[in-house]
Amino acid sequence: MKAEYINPFVESTGEVFTTMLSCAPSWGDIRLDVGDSGPFEISALIGLTGTAKGTVEMSFPDTTAVAICNRLIGQENSEVNEGVIDALGEMVNMVAGSAKAKFKGHKINISLPTVVRGKNHIVEHPKGSESLIIPFESELGDFIVRVSFATS
Amino acid sequence: MKAEYINPFVESTGEVFTTMLSCAPSWGDIRLDVGDSGPFEISALIGLTGTAKGTVEMSFPDTTAVAICNRLIGQENSEVNEGVIDALGEMVNMVAGSAKAKFKGHKINISLPTVVRGKNHIVEHPKGSESLIIPFESELGDFIVRVSFATS
Repeated sequence: MKAEYINPFVESTGEVFTTMLSCAPSWGDIRLDVGDSGPFEISALIGLTGTAKGTVEMSFPDTTAVAICNRLIGQENSEVNEGVIDALGEMVNMVAGSAKAKFKGHKINISLPTVVRGKNHIVEHPKGSESLIIPFESELGDFIVRVSFATS
Repeated sequence: MKAEYINPFVESTGEVFTTMLSCAPSWGDIRLDVGDSGPFEISALIGLTGTAKGTVEMSFPDTTAVAICNRLIGQENSEVNEGVIDALGEMVNMVAGSAKAKFKGHKINISLPTVVRGKNHIVEHPKGSESLIIPFESELGDFIVRVSFATS
């Protein structure tokens, strides 16, 4: 996958976290997804269409998810509930929305966010796509952003 | 949700199953998703963008997923593997692709399929969307199609 496909998501994740959560996350080595990441407890996904077709996914341990929601909306939830689901959907929506403006020479549209819960769930992308994983660390906890684009 | 948003998916699921799997599924009462369906073992999702923004999801017990894959590509898998993941991604891609041509007065684009695995996983749609569930029965097993569209 070209750097121009992944950089918008690295930048927009940093910007959304900094702006919305007053939290500047740092990212580690970006790596090819070979099915070795996760499992996670909660994942927020959104589809991308346009001149490049793909998916962006943010996956979190429950503790990170709850901490993000509490910071975002000023609550004190102790477990994943409807408010946390909504907050994660909003986070991936903002990250993808911010990233699409950064694509040079591409017109990208974003779909509706979906949130997947369940211990040990695995998100897979069928053949014909390539996925990169960006691991993030933050004071609210670790998480990953996975970006997948169709190879054809 | 308007009938014009759901009928294309009822029709296209029937057509794709009949054409690709020589299997004519029947559908039950379409109902509002109030979180009472599932959990399922494997779900294939695809994002929709355009004049209507949403998600279409097909959720299966593992036994139905394996039976669909074996019929589609003429194999004899006994458990979910990479071939089954690819087959389900292809199924939701065909159903959404066929449905988008049936939307009157809407221009719909589809994203890349994503497949979620894991016993007891739950797929949720954050606020601002409405979901309908179409339950299907077929000789290859039961499954559901869930269609979600943004309400705004």
